[in-house]
Amino acid sequence: MNKSTATFYHAGCPVCLDAESVVTRYLDTTKVNLEVVHLGTVRNRIAEAEAAGVKSVPALVVGGQTLHLNFGAPLSVLK
Amino acid sequence: MNKSTATFYHAGCPVCLDAESVVTRYLDTTKVNLEVVHLGTVRNRIAEAEAAGVKSVPALVVGGQTLHLNFGAPLSVLK
Repeated sequence: MNKSTATFYHAGCPVCLDAESVVTRYLDTTKVNLEVVHLGTVRNRIAEAEAAGVKSVPALVVGGQTLHLNFGAPLSVLK
Repeated sequence: MNKSTATFYHAGCPVCLDAESVVTRYLDTTKVNLEVVHLGTVRNRIAEAEAAGVKSVPALVVGGQTLHLNFGAPLSVLK
């Protein structure tokens, strides 16, 4: 069985980095592959994040769910 | 080495249950033990959650960090 992918969206903000450290440390990568996407530099993926229900960063999309992890910045400031 | 504990605080709300399903499914329990605390029923632990920086549920306290996972309810409504 192929592993699905968990996507962590961030924008390099301090809150983002704190959340990223938790995700990279504690996400069970035997179950999912982790992809980290910096929306400040990869702006062509903002639409994909929005489609997944991401309204602010940092956020983690995994297993069909979207979790906003604390609040760093709204997606709107990245456009 | 003893594993540390990750504590997931919630109040049984729909947003809480969605977040709990992600945490129980994807938290790497080879690194931390997971404790799930329903603050609506275990009110004597609200102060402990507050001391860890929890301002709303659902929230996960792990590795010295506190992550609010989306927003279900402020801690104040549980008091």
